[in-house]
Amino acid sequence: MSRYEHIKQAAYDANMQLPKLGLVLFTFGNVSAVDRGEGVFAIKPSGIPYEDLTPEKMVVVDFDSFVVEGNMRPSSDTKTHAVLYRHWEKIGGIVHTHSTYATSWAQAQRAIPIFGTTHADHLTVDIPCAPPMEDSMIEGDYEHQTGFQILNHFEKLGLSYEEVEMILVGNHAPFTWGKTPEKAVYNSAVLEQVAQMALLTEQINREAPRLKDALIKKHFERKHGPLSYYGQV
Amino acid sequence: MSRYEHIKQAAYDANMQLPKLGLVLFTFGNVSAVDRGEGVFAIKPSGIPYEDLTPEKMVVVDFDSFVVEGNMRPSSDTKTHAVLYRHWEKIGGIVHTHSTYATSWAQAQRAIPIFGTTHADHLTVDIPCAPPMEDSMIEGDYEHQTGFQILNHFEKLGLSYEEVEMILVGNHAPFTWGKTPEKAVYNSAVLEQVAQMALLTEQINREAPRLKDALIKKHFERKHGPLSYYGQV
Amino acid sequence: MSRYEHIKQAAYDANMQLPKLGLVLFTFGNVSAVDRGEGVFAIKPSGIPYEDLTPEKMVVVDFDSFVVEGNMRPSSDTKTHAVLYRHWEKIGGIVHTHSTYATSWAQAQRAIPIFGTTHADHLTVDIPCAPPMEDSMIEGDYEHQTGFQILNHFEKLGLSYEEVEMILVGNHAPFTWGKTPEKAVYNSAVLEQVAQMALLTEQINREAPRLKDALIKKHFERKHGPLSYYGQV
Amino acid sequence: MSRYEHIKQAAYDANMQLPKLGLVLFTFGNVSAVDRGEGVFAIKPSGIPYEDLTPEKMVVVDFDSFVVEGNMRPSSDTKTHAVLYRHWEKIGGIVHTHSTYATSWAQAQRAIPIFGTTHADHLTVDIPCAPPMEDSMIEGDYEHQTGFQILNHFEKLGLSYEEVEMILVGNHAPFTWGKTPEKAVYNSAVLEQVAQMALLTEQINREAPRLKDALIKKHFERKHGPLSYYGQV
Repeated sequence: MSRYEHIKQAAYDANMQLPKLGLVLFTFGNVSAVDRGEGVFAIKPSGIPYEDLTPEKMVVVDFDSFVVEGNMRPSSDTKTHAVLYRHWEKIGGIVHTHSTYATSWAQAQRAIPIFGTTHADHLTVDIPCAPPMEDSMIEGDYEHQTGFQILNHFEKLGLSYEEVEMILVGNHAPFTWGKTPEKAVYNSAVLEQVAQMALLTEQINREAPRLKDALIKKHFERKHGPLSYYGQV
Repeated sequence: MSRYEHIKQAAYDANMQLPKLGLVLFTFGNVSAVDRGEGVFAIKPSGIPYEDLTPEKMVVVDFDSFVVEGNMRPSSDTKTHAVLYRHWEKIGGIVHTHSTYATSWAQAQRAIPIFGTTHADHLTVDIPCAPPMEDSMIEGDYEHQTGFQILNHFEKLGLSYEEVEMILVGNHAPFTWGKTPEKAVYNSAVLEQVAQMALLTEQINREAPRLKDALIKKHFERKHGPLSYYGQV
Repeated sequence: MSRYEHIKQAAYDANMQLPKLGLVLFTFGNVSAVDRGEGVFAIKPSGIPYEDLTPEKMVVVDFDSFVVEGNMRPSSDTKTHAVLYRHWEKIGGIVHTHSTYATSWAQAQRAIPIFGTTHADHLTVDIPCAPPMEDSMIEGDYEHQTGFQILNHFEKLGLSYEEVEMILVGNHAPFTWGKTPEKAVYNSAVLEQVAQMALLTEQINREAPRLKDALIKKHFERKHGPLSYYGQV
Repeated sequence: MSRYEHIKQAAYDANMQLPKLGLVLFTFGNVSAVDRGEGVFAIKPSGIPYEDLTPEKMVVVDFDSFVVEGNMRPSSDTKTHAVLYRHWEKIGGIVHTHSTYATSWAQAQRAIPIFGTTHADHLTVDIPCAPPMEDSMIEGDYEHQTGFQILNHFEKLGLSYEEVEMILVGNHAPFTWGKTPEKAVYNSAVLEQVAQMALLTEQINREAPRLKDALIKKHFERKHGPLSYYGQV
C-alpha cells in the first residue's frame, strides 16, 4: 500500500465530484490534494476520462512537479497547482475547471461583481479576474507562470487567499482552492452558481447596484469568523 | 415519540423537495412547518446537506425562535420564519431558497412584471421585491428584521399574504409561503419558472406589455375563489 | 371495459410524454386524443399530477365539452380542444403546455421568425402568435373563445392547420396538434426547441436574416409531400 | 455476419452518444463511420429514433451514396457525408447535429470568435460558418451540394480539415468530423460547449477581445503536434 494512499483517495473522491456537479465536460478539469508533511500532492492524470479514474491512477508529485509515484503523466496544469501549494501554505486542495459560466466571465475578462448575499456568504469582494499573461510568460514555462499570474494578481489587489478562495484567469478559466479538496470543489460549484446569477442580474437590470457594505459584512460574518452562526458548532 | 412528529415529518418531506425540484445548491435553502396549536414550528438544521437530513434532525422552535426540541442549531434564517408565522396567522409553511432566476431578479432589485397567464394563474400583481434594508436594520438583529422588511413591504403595497404567497428580498433571495409546507414549496417552484420566463420575455421583446386586466382576472378566478373551476372539487 | 379504452390509453400515453420531454412543471399542460367515429375525445383530468395519472382517470367528453365518461373534471382547457376538434376535422390529438421558451415568445407577443432548417423541416412560415383576446371574449366563455381566437388567426393569416400544426396564444402559451396525439406531443417539443434557438439566434445577431425561400422550400419538401425522402417509406 | 460489422458497430456506438451528450432532440442528427479499404461507410437510417437503433440497422453506402447493405433508407444527409469522405481522405467519421447553441450561431450566420483557451485547445481559428448556398445549389442535388459548400468554404479560408474539424453551415447546423467516429462526436460536444460560452462571453462583455496569439499557439500546441504534453503517451 502506498504511503500516499490518503491523498490519492482524497484527490480521487474530489475529482469524481466534478462531473456529478456538472462542472466539467469530458476531461476539462482537475483536482489535487496535498500532504504538507510529505511535501507532495496527488493530482488527476492528464486526459483520462472521469469514468476510467481510480484512486490508484492518481499521480503524486512534489512542489517542483516531479513525479514521486504513479505511472501516468499528471495533469497538464500540475505546475500551476505546485506554485500555489508552495506559496499558499494553508491550502489543502486546488480545483481547475472550464465550467460554463465562470469560464465565460474569464473569457470576457471581467471580475464578477458582488450583487447579492449568495456571493457575500462566501467572499466580500468581486471575484477577481487576472489579466491574460504577457507573451513572454506564455511562451516560457506557461503553467508555472499561470501560478505566478494568480499570485501577482492577489498581491496587486491586496487579497488574502484564505478569505478569497477563487479566481478567474483572463481568457482561460477558473481556479479555486480551500483547506481541503472537498472545500475547493465546493468553491468551484459556488463560483459557477454566482457567475450565472451575476450574468442574469445584469440582463434583468443593466444598472444593478453592487451589494451594500452592511449586507456584505453581515452575510460574510454569518458564515465566517468568531461571531458566525451558520451551520453546526 | 415526539409530540412534534407531524411537523418534523412535514418539514422533512418539504425540505427534501427542494433539491428534487432543482431549487437549491448544497444547503442554500430551508423549509419550515408550523403547529399553530402548540405555537411552534419545525425547521431544517443549519448547514446540513439534504442527503444527510432525517425527520429526527428537524429542529422545533417557538415564535421567539427558542429551541423547544432538537440537538442542532436551527437554520440561520429561523427568525425570519418566526416573524412571518407570528404575524401572518393563516400560513402553515415557509420556504427560503436561492433559486437561480428568482434570486437574480432579487439581485437586480426589480419586481417581476406580470407578463402572462402562468403568472396570473397564481397571483394578480407583479411579484413584489422588497428593497434592501437600512443599515441599522442589517447591523441589528438581521434575520428578525428581514421578517419585518417583508411585512412592511406588503403593508406599503397593500398586499394580502393570503393572495400573494411570495416575495423577493432585494439583493438577497426569495421567500414563499402557503397554507401548508407543500404549497409553500410549490410556490417556490412556480416563482422560479415565472422568473425565468419573465427574463426571456423581456429578451424577446424589450417593450413586452404587461398582461391585460381582463386576462389577469380571468386566470386567477379560474384557479381561486368561489367561481374557480380548475382542479377537482 | 370502456368503449373508449383506446383513446383513454392514447391520451394517457401522450400526457405522460410531457414531463419526460421537460415540457411541463407540475400540472401545467394537457393532451387529448379524439375518436372521430364516436365524436368524443379523452383528456387529462384537471389539476392531477402526472405521477398520479392512469388511463382510467382520463375524462371522455363530446365536442360540446359534456362529460361522457369519467368521474373527474376534465382539464380547464377542454373547451378549447373541443372547438379545434369540431372545426379542424383531420386532427387526432391536441397538446397545450406552458413550456418555457414557447411561452416566453407568447408572452412577448411575437411570432417566431423562421431562422433555420430545423424550423423549415416542420413548417414554412413564422410560427404564428394570435393576439390576446378582446375583453368581451375573455369575460365570456373564455376557453371556448380561445379556440375561436386560434381559428380566426389562422384564417386571417391564410394558414392551413394541416401544414402548420402549432400556434402561440399571445400572453398565454402554445397549443399544438397533429394527426395523432403522439405527433401533437412531438410538435410541442419541436416548437420548444425552435423557440429557444430563435431567441439565441437574435442574441447572437440582432440582424439575423430570415431563412431564404429556396431553403424553406427544400427542407420542408424533404420531410413532407410527394417528393419527401426523409424517414422510411 | 456482415463484412461491414466493424463500421456498423462503430457507427451505432457513436450515434448512441448523441442523445447521451444532449446533442440531439428526437432524430435530429446522425453519425457515420468509414471503411477506407472497402470504400464504404455505415450511417444511421433516416428518421429512426435512437432508442430503436441497433448495429444491424445501420445502412452501408459507397461514396456515391448507393446502398451496399441494409434494408432501410440511409440518413437524408448521406450525400453530404459522401462528398466529405471522398475529398478528405484522412477522416474516419462524420457527425451532423442540430445542437442548440451551435445551430443558433449557424442561424445567425456568424463564425464563432475564439475567446478562450477551451476553444484554443481544439483549434486556432474562429469556427467557420459557410454562407447559405446559392439558390441553384439548393434546388439541385441539395445534400450533395452541401458537401461542396463546406469544401469550398474551407478552401476560401485556406483551412485544413485535419486542423479544423468542424464547421457551421449558415442557416442550417453544424458538421464535425475526425479520424474516428468517436473523435467526431467529441468534436460535436466541444463545439456545442464553445458555442454556448462564446454567446455568454459576448453577453458579459460586448467588447470582449479575441484570444491573443501567444495563448492560441500555446494551448493548441499543448494538445497537438510534436511538442504536445496533454494526455498520456
